Amino acid sequence: MADAVPVVVGIDFGTLSGRAVVVRTTDGAELGQAVHEYRHAVLTTALPDGTPLPPDWALQVPSDYVDVLRHAVPRALEAAGVDPADVVGVGTDFTACTMVPTLRDGTPLCELDGLAGRPHAYVKLWKHHAAQGQADRINRLAHERGEPWIARYGGLISSEWEFAKALQILEEDPDTYTRVERWVEAADWIVWQLTGEYVRNACSAGYKGILQDGAYPSPEFLGTLHPGFADFVTTRLEQPIGTLGTAAGRLSEAAAAWTGLPAGIVVAVGNVDAHVTAAACDALRAGQMVAITGTSTCHVVNGDEPLQVPGMCGVVDGGIVAGRWGYEAGQSGVGDIFGHFVERFVPADYTEAAAARGVSAHEYLTELASVQHPGQHGLIALDWHSGNRSVLVDHELSAVMVGETLATRPEDVYRALIEATAFGTRTIIETFRNAGVPITELVVAGGLLKNSMIMQIYSDVTRMPLSVIESDQGPALGSAIHAAVAAGVYPDVPSAATLMGRRKPAVYVPDEAAAEVYDALFAEYTTLHDYFGRGANDVMHRLRHIARTGAQR
Amino acid sequence: MADAVPVVVGIDFGTLSGRAVVVRTTDGAELGQAVHEYRHAVLTTALPDGTPLPPDWALQVPSDYVDVLRHAVPRALEAAGVDPADVVGVGTDFTACTMVPTLRDGTPLCELDGLAGRPHAYVKLWKHHAAQGQADRINRLAHERGEPWIARYGGLISSEWEFAKALQILEEDPDTYTRVERWVEAADWIVWQLTGEYVRNACSAGYKGILQDGAYPSPEFLGTLHPGFADFVTTRLEQPIGTLGTAAGRLSEAAAAWTGLPAGIVVAVGNVDAHVTAAACDALRAGQMVAITGTSTCHVVNGDEPLQVPGMCGVVDGGIVAGRWGYEAGQSGVGDIFGHFVERFVPADYTEAAAARGVSAHEYLTELASVQHPGQHGLIALDWHSGNRSVLVDHELSAVMVGETLATRPEDVYRALIEATAFGTRTIIETFRNAGVPITELVVAGGLLKNSMIMQIYSDVTRMPLSVIESDQGPALGSAIHAAVAAGVYPDVPSAATLMGRRKPAVYVPDEAAAEVYDALFAEYTTLHDYFGRGANDVMHRLRHIARTGAQR
Repeated sequence: MADAVPVVVGIDFGTLSGRAVVVRTTDGAELGQAVHEYRHAVLTTALPDGTPLPPDWALQVPSDYVDVLRHAVPRALEAAGVDPADVVGVGTDFTACTMVPTLRDGTPLCELDGLAGRPHAYVKLWKHHAAQGQADRINRLAHERGEPWIARYGGLISSEWEFAKALQILEEDPDTYTRVERWVEAADWIVWQLTGEYVRNACSAGYKGILQDGAYPSPEFLGTLHPGFADFVTTRLEQPIGTLGTAAGRLSEAAAAWTGLPAGIVVAVGNVDAHVTAAACDALRAGQMVAITGTSTCHVVNGDEPLQVPGMCGVVDGGIVAGRWGYEAGQSGVGDIFGHFVERFVPADYTEAAAARGVSAHEYLTELASVQHPGQHGLIALDWHSGNRSVLVDHELSAVMVGETLATRPEDVYRALIEATAFGTRTIIETFRNAGVPITELVVAGGLLKNSMIMQIYSDVTRMPLSVIESDQGPALGSAIHAAVAAGVYPDVPSAATLMGRRKPAVYVPDEAAAEVYDALFAEYTTLHDYFGRGANDVMHRLRHIARTGAQR
Repeated sequence: MADAVPVVVGIDFGTLSGRAVVVRTTDGAELGQAVHEYRHAVLTTALPDGTPLPPDWALQVPSDYVDVLRHAVPRALEAAGVDPADVVGVGTDFTACTMVPTLRDGTPLCELDGLAGRPHAYVKLWKHHAAQGQADRINRLAHERGEPWIARYGGLISSEWEFAKALQILEEDPDTYTRVERWVEAADWIVWQLTGEYVRNACSAGYKGILQDGAYPSPEFLGTLHPGFADFVTTRLEQPIGTLGTAAGRLSEAAAAWTGLPAGIVVAVGNVDAHVTAAACDALRAGQMVAITGTSTCHVVNGDEPLQVPGMCGVVDGGIVAGRWGYEAGQSGVGDIFGHFVERFVPADYTEAAAARGVSAHEYLTELASVQHPGQHGLIALDWHSGNRSVLVDHELSAVMVGETLATRPEDVYRALIEATAFGTRTIIETFRNAGVPITELVVAGGLLKNSMIMQIYSDVTRMPLSVIESDQGPALGSAIHAAVAAGVYPDVPSAATLMGRRKPAVYVPDEAAAEVYDALFAEYTTLHDYFGRGANDVMHRLRHIARTGAQR
């Protein structure tokens, strides 16, 4: 074994599945991988026992995560053809903020007798959006009291995060709340399962747990929200913080049995899927913004100081890499907007033509849309089908399409939706720059990479060359990089990223003529963005209210 | 023949076909009918010889109209089984403003040697929208000069009307303009073919020809638009005016040969399709608004005085019936909006489900949408896919859809589009009422009648009971009523309408709970209507400009 090249395993826990990748530490080569889909996927309408769920709920079952360890890791090792004895470390990343209510020993509440039918005993997935009322009150009170931490989150806490989701349990199901002994990020829960140690990772704690300058929101603040919430931090949340890229512990015998890995190897502190991807891109320097695109898009970028960026998701000391201030922003709907359009609004003659040519409907629409010049379709859209994360932080917003005529075709709408998400990205970039955070490079990872028309539009709209991640498995590779550092193969994450991560620079460069048209269209986007998103016309909120009140009649 | 019941023939010239109906004068019974489709339909991309047409053009070929006389009339007579000798009169109605450029004898220019390849030598159909620039200048100058007639058109002349379309010829093809000896409404041209007499009907002349208080726009006004336009009225337009329901002349030998009707019978003065329908509904009293629904919707209502209604199409003395002031308004896109959505944006699983159930996609979507409560879909739309005729008079406006999410389904959009057109109707009704024109009854005719969900939504949105025309052939029946009056069977059109026309009252009545939700949604519609339509955000005009300039690069 002394002669063998050390390898690491990175495991990426996504929304619907987990993926394990075996990676060579010397150069980041991906030697083998395997995917395991969660048996229960996402619970949005009912619990496994049939208990119905209200709208906007999104739950998961924690044993599904353990199944990834049991199935994906052994299969990845087999695919890689490596001796498990050569594996020196394991790293993981997870969706966030995804929260597991547990006992003191980490047992999920939904696995306890009598709680299988209680929705609040399950994992609240990142896209559980039913705690908006709680988030609204947290935000109002924070501004009333002048809490200093609220500026670190662009002025708004999301309903997706730890405090809003916890307060929802307390207020809607106080009995279950009394059973919650630990309120655990899934990112940390899975490390707990691997090591037997509960270490809270700096990334989740900072971005989702409002841990700033070593402190959480005060008992006075929490007690004003609800008297029973005053002790929430001390009784359920506080836990030692682990620096990213350090060891949380060592692989337990139980976890070794699940995975086929040697007991005792290092397990890295947990991490978040988007944030580890910056390492996989070797894009950890200040100003390198990494956009992890997919159903939604997350933007992470390091800076040298904590500045106030309106509507960012947060700025966290060591949130992406130790020693730098990590900024995060996001677009809550991107690929799922295109997917929804293709699924629900593309007619049979298009899907038949695509099938006849042996391409997907997405590919067919892309072919038709790609011959258009910018602005030709006469449309402008707001990309708020899933609300708006940055920079408005309002999940009750909804989409707008302006400019349809009787000549409008599906490819026109498809292209307009793509452009709208590009305008959303430009809005985020400009907001960072206006706040003094330099954005010097745009690096793209994730699913949208495979569509070169989308990439060209993003380059034209942002007027930036696009760098592109080289790995197809960005998050898992990023986790593997963190595992290599935790195992001592490299002294720190940036050093490891230089050798194990990589990107291609300037794969797409802006076309000046297109960029000029998009400047004009972006001005229209901004006008509509501010009109519908900043209170001039609150019609979207009122439409949701009408829809809800009507349904209750 | 003395014992026979006198019958009349009504001929309705629509956008794509002409329809002849044989009607009994005693009770309006429709004894037989036949349709003939225009061979050339609408020319939008090229002339018959292949000469290409610019965007927004819509032309027709006048010989297609004569073919209706040759084919539809004899077949209708045959279907009715009546002796042609029992026919005492013929009445016609036409789309408007549809203009034929002719020689002094009525010969269409496009039939002359050497002009078959000249677009401006053809009939300009009502929906020819390429004279917007001319209309804009007419409107600007009219307001600058304080022309009194502009108020009779709600403050705005349409690009669809006689002066804008004529000025376009002069400016774009002065050679052809010099050949225009008469600028003739198709409504009058067809009567000219039937009788050999050119009589200008009071309806078209008033609504489309700016004839008010016996005068057209002055030579000074026209000369300021273009020096060569100063003599337009005297050289090309002026003609004796025929009162609606009077005889224009008698059937010529040539027309008798085409139609199989007896030469010498009375032919009524020409008329417009929407306006004759009021007679077919027996809805000629002041305050009875008739909405003729179809691809677009036209609203006609009589009043006792000429009031200024912003954005109406016009108010004309004797424009609907002699002795009253006839008001007209319109929605430029209605059924064609629903049709476009079904054709372009309904997915295969829906069309397959509809086919499996043996219903049309419209019927299937209606089934799905009709079980929703108002507001449930969370959407609000502006129905401007074809621009806005009333009350904004702007064909460069385009549609808006607000509120889409990833949960939005095709039936949601379908219902929202229907509701948007109902809000458009309510906007028109409220504008009339605010101007002091009473609207006491809403009578519906035309194609939307067959969808009871649409009718109920219109009743709920307008908060008015809906009366419904009983005939399926409203315009042709209306023309037949005018023929009966012209032939002397009745002393005037209202008397004839009482016996030959009919409607069912209060077929749909508003549901109070639905109407309350729609009040709230109409307030949202109005806010968006004014924001996008009255200059606060001129994005729609700018999007069209970007689309056009991009296409020219």
